[in-house]
Amino acid sequence: MNSLAEVLADRDLASLGDAYINFAYSLALSKRTGKPLGVKVKGSVLAQALRNAGLREYLPSRMTKHALADAAEALIVYAWIRKAITLEEAVRIMAKNHESVGGLTRLLVTVRDRITFS
Amino acid sequence: MNSLAEVLADRDLASLGDAYINFAYSLALSKRTGKPLGVKVKGSVLAQALRNAGLREYLPSRMTKHALADAAEALIVYAWIRKAITLEEAVRIMAKNHESVGGLTRLLVTVRDRITFS
Repeated sequence: MNSLAEVLADRDLASLGDAYINFAYSLALSKRTGKPLGVKVKGSVLAQALRNAGLREYLPSRMTKHALADAAEALIVYAWIRKAITLEEAVRIMAKNHESVGGLTRLLVTVRDRITFS
Repeated sequence: MNSLAEVLADRDLASLGDAYINFAYSLALSKRTGKPLGVKVKGSVLAQALRNAGLREYLPSRMTKHALADAAEALIVYAWIRKAITLEEAVRIMAKNHESVGGLTRLLVTVRDRITFS
């Protein structure tokens, strides 16, 4: 991967990222509520977090919410694959926030700051 | 948790376990194919793996496939929570197998052997 735009547009990464973020967010919610819980993160939540994190500008105009959510999932799992963030830290960041958009925004900002492209 | 039967019947664990196994299995498939990939593990596959692992007898008779799948998911994530197995090892075990039922059976047998109840 040579650029942030390339990572955000990667459909394969988005596919794995979907499984990653559902698990990580489920762990964050489990941590907050004190009991095991599994959830699916909604596309609209991921899309909003992507915008809040200032990442919308790296993507083409006219994208569906679904495509924006894919981009967020791709970046988040890319950071984990590249060891820019551990699963534990991602969970901790999301668990601190009382609502999902806030937690995911913070996670996106964190990984964006840590990933460097040559 | 005081017994294997209790873990297998835990609906909260099953809920988190669903997210865990989808992510872990997606990683195993990504490892085998060499590209990131996200998948959902089918309930029928988990139910068959549970039977193959000799765990069916710990559950009441007359259970749906869905309930058997829940039991498998509960046990697998319980083992991870209790640190009986790491995510990396679970992925490695499943990636070794060429088909999903075989990989999940091996994973269930492994965690069952490691979990002890007082």
